Amino acid sequence: MRRAVFPGSFNPVHMGHLDIIKRAVRVFDEVVVAVYENPPGKQIIFDTHERVALLEEAVKDIPHVVVASYRGLTVDYVTAVDAFILIRGMRVFSDFEFEFRMALANQRLAPHIEMINFITGEQFIHISSSTVREIAMLGGDVSTMVPPHVNRALRERFAQLQAEDGI
Amino acid sequence: MRRAVFPGSFNPVHMGHLDIIKRAVRVFDEVVVAVYENPPGKQIIFDTHERVALLEEAVKDIPHVVVASYRGLTVDYVTAVDAFILIRGMRVFSDFEFEFRMALANQRLAPHIEMINFITGEQFIHISSSTVREIAMLGGDVSTMVPPHVNRALRERFAQLQAEDGI
Amino acid sequence: MRRAVFPGSFNPVHMGHLDIIKRAVRVFDEVVVAVYENPPGKQIIFDTHERVALLEEAVKDIPHVVVASYRGLTVDYVTAVDAFILIRGMRVFSDFEFEFRMALANQRLAPHIEMINFITGEQFIHISSSTVREIAMLGGDVSTMVPPHVNRALRERFAQLQAEDGI
Amino acid sequence: MRRAVFPGSFNPVHMGHLDIIKRAVRVFDEVVVAVYENPPGKQIIFDTHERVALLEEAVKDIPHVVVASYRGLTVDYVTAVDAFILIRGMRVFSDFEFEFRMALANQRLAPHIEMINFITGEQFIHISSSTVREIAMLGGDVSTMVPPHVNRALRERFAQLQAEDGI
Amino acid sequence: MRRAVFPGSFNPVHMGHLDIIKRAVRVFDEVVVAVYENPPGKQIIFDTHERVALLEEAVKDIPHVVVASYRGLTVDYVTAVDAFILIRGMRVFSDFEFEFRMALANQRLAPHIEMINFITGEQFIHISSSTVREIAMLGGDVSTMVPPHVNRALRERFAQLQAEDGI
Amino acid sequence: MRRAVFPGSFNPVHMGHLDIIKRAVRVFDEVVVAVYENPPGKQIIFDTHERVALLEEAVKDIPHVVVASYRGLTVDYVTAVDAFILIRGMRVFSDFEFEFRMALANQRLAPHIEMINFITGEQFIHISSSTVREIAMLGGDVSTMVPPHVNRALRERFAQLQAEDGI
Repeated sequence: MRRAVFPGSFNPVHMGHLDIIKRAVRVFDEVVVAVYENPPGKQIIFDTHERVALLEEAVKDIPHVVVASYRGLTVDYVTAVDAFILIRGMRVFSDFEFEFRMALANQRLAPHIEMINFITGEQFIHISSSTVREIAMLGGDVSTMVPPHVNRALRERFAQLQAEDGI
Repeated sequence: MRRAVFPGSFNPVHMGHLDIIKRAVRVFDEVVVAVYENPPGKQIIFDTHERVALLEEAVKDIPHVVVASYRGLTVDYVTAVDAFILIRGMRVFSDFEFEFRMALANQRLAPHIEMINFITGEQFIHISSSTVREIAMLGGDVSTMVPPHVNRALRERFAQLQAEDGI
Repeated sequence: MRRAVFPGSFNPVHMGHLDIIKRAVRVFDEVVVAVYENPPGKQIIFDTHERVALLEEAVKDIPHVVVASYRGLTVDYVTAVDAFILIRGMRVFSDFEFEFRMALANQRLAPHIEMINFITGEQFIHISSSTVREIAMLGGDVSTMVPPHVNRALRERFAQLQAEDGI
Repeated sequence: MRRAVFPGSFNPVHMGHLDIIKRAVRVFDEVVVAVYENPPGKQIIFDTHERVALLEEAVKDIPHVVVASYRGLTVDYVTAVDAFILIRGMRVFSDFEFEFRMALANQRLAPHIEMINFITGEQFIHISSSTVREIAMLGGDVSTMVPPHVNRALRERFAQLQAEDGI
Repeated sequence: MRRAVFPGSFNPVHMGHLDIIKRAVRVFDEVVVAVYENPPGKQIIFDTHERVALLEEAVKDIPHVVVASYRGLTVDYVTAVDAFILIRGMRVFSDFEFEFRMALANQRLAPHIEMINFITGEQFIHISSSTVREIAMLGGDVSTMVPPHVNRALRERFAQLQAEDGI
Repeated sequence: MRRAVFPGSFNPVHMGHLDIIKRAVRVFDEVVVAVYENPPGKQIIFDTHERVALLEEAVKDIPHVVVASYRGLTVDYVTAVDAFILIRGMRVFSDFEFEFRMALANQRLAPHIEMINFITGEQFIHISSSTVREIAMLGGDVSTMVPPHVNRALRERFAQLQAEDGI
């Protein structure tokens, strides 16, 4: 069985992530969507449990997909779940730059792990988690960028944050 | 069975190609290495039969690899051999640009085909078929860039071309 | 009146060009679509008259658009038609590189001319004239990339070329 | 009347911004220079009122330019001031990347808004607000990068900050 | 005598830095490795004295190399030590972008200073100080990326930080 | 003595080349400007003797500069003239890409040779030999891009080519 791991912050999960997941399950036998618990330097709007729950709801109709969370080195996690394939999505040029450096570093750290890149579909190029967060925070409409339940969660979270700010 | 197609001009096959092929057979059940017969605008130094023969010799010890040649649209060939996975290698930034445009075009032409990118290993970044041809043509040493039988074929071909030029 | 010139080879005109033209007429008072007669180093499949005719048919329902052809320096042509705005489209990274160099050179050659860039819509990123030519030449379907009359012209042209080749 | 909005942090306004503004008023009927009030993640050295005042002084001799401030989504502000043209400057490659993603997102959020990019003049490529801030903070000379009154304001601000730090 | 300055945060020094230093001493008469004291916005894991000490140990067998620390504008420091050559390493595309902007700014600030770029060796492309820090922090093995004494210092520092965190 | 080689087609020499040469003689003891005799795939408008003569005239007032021509691998020529430093200029992003690949290949072919990159001055970014050729061929003014004697040679050459074409 070829198990592949798709790691990320999923902060929050969006349509571009789901596109990669759907395409990956056609190519591999099982896809583990792995939520990175404490991504350094990122503004986390949902905690690990919330991010896992939002993902589980989003992939509940896609067979052969498992959601989990992890900490530590990604290549160590891939090995720990008996996988050797690491899935990455690329939307734009700076993604390539990052993936290129990570691929070279991973080949040194864990040469048995195979990193595989999917280029995002054109209708998802404009979507990133940070774009979703920024637009949602400013009250913009992200309903075409995330699944409905993530849209609701974003609205509740930002309403709550504004209430706390006394605005 | 998940069959994947790795298309290219292989003009000539080099160590970077073989790295992708070896990594791809770990990930898929069968890899069809497909030689594009008449790549437009390329200086072809070996004809289709020679390129297929050089490849067959190069992969003869790698199981689950088939060498073939094709003409026409690549996505049509992938479908014709009952595959849906298209393998591509990326070495540098301009490769990403090309792959990005091709991925978007292929998603329109043949949405059922999945294009998958491998980032080359660091020891192969400097190798491309055109670099090999240029160095070999100027009498430089490409023995670390191509398998021994390709190195011999290049030397014979360029010796022959120089003899024809009366140099 | 603010007249703008949109120069190009239009070899052939495609949906991405038409998107830029439609957007430009909202922003300027008149758009001159200027067909470059003899682009160096390009494989021209339609002659200047054909390219102008295909464009005129394509823009016949868009008001305030004029089609013309020119030779010589583009900035000289812009000045000659009493315009000072030069429109350019950008799809991908290498387009930016080219536009960047051209913008700097034009600022030296003709500082009174203003070069303005439109970023292509996401559904047109995958379309370029060379992609259209390559796919059409190999018998692929470009009906979503070009207007119907251009699609017909391409099919006739490549059928004719194949007949001449005796294939 | 074609009104265009040129949004930014202007933290602080520099010669490159003024170049875009001067070029934009030749192309459009009115240019609204819109100061973004609370850009997230930026080290703001002048508050909104100061940034507006520095800009107003800088553009006081350029006709058809209005300075204002805004919060919320940029595309909402453009619509609110009865404009449909959004002006952006591009200096370097990573600017293109950012503009590309923003253009695609804006086409989804507000398809009636036209985003138009100017490539900076070569004598301004080296200038960015962050470069100006860093050099000024280290006591370097930015007199060729910003108007004289901005240079004075920067020197006063950093002298004040150093005094507060007890240096 | 041609003295060159190689400035950086060296946070921490790694094999890629040492490669540049070794190559630079072949080309220039003396190389001053200059540790920037308070790089803004960087997570500093070793203070200036520690970074200088780690560097001195690392270069102790390379003749004609001096280690020092500085604050303020880099071009001012280069002039202060009677040098006019500024050495920079480039690994990847975004490095070029940064170097390009810095080169243009420096040519304005200090036209007598010559900035010279070395492209990193292929076995060092995957190494950056931030990659080293991230992998070391997560308990990964960086022994092939930094000299042994830096590896020890990193392990002690992160063990200490985890103890302080009560983990 | 540190001798450096600055190789190129110099087809024709332009102000950007001269900027690199002037900066290189400040850094090295001698600069050999090496004209590549038969660059493949380039439209050569001046033969090797003409290109050498135009260069010699252009550098005649710069001390410690020698002009020569060569064929074969550049790294072999560098070694043959007792040099170990290879100078390259970089103007734009695609130059970096090319230099990056060439640097990695050269480190394999000739590890004792040090390749050193200068980033072009901002007033020369828009100048390349191909831009000069294209503008001159279309009758545009290149007097700010090349030395006066090269400008004269270009005008004579294109007048002659047009006469031969019977235009």
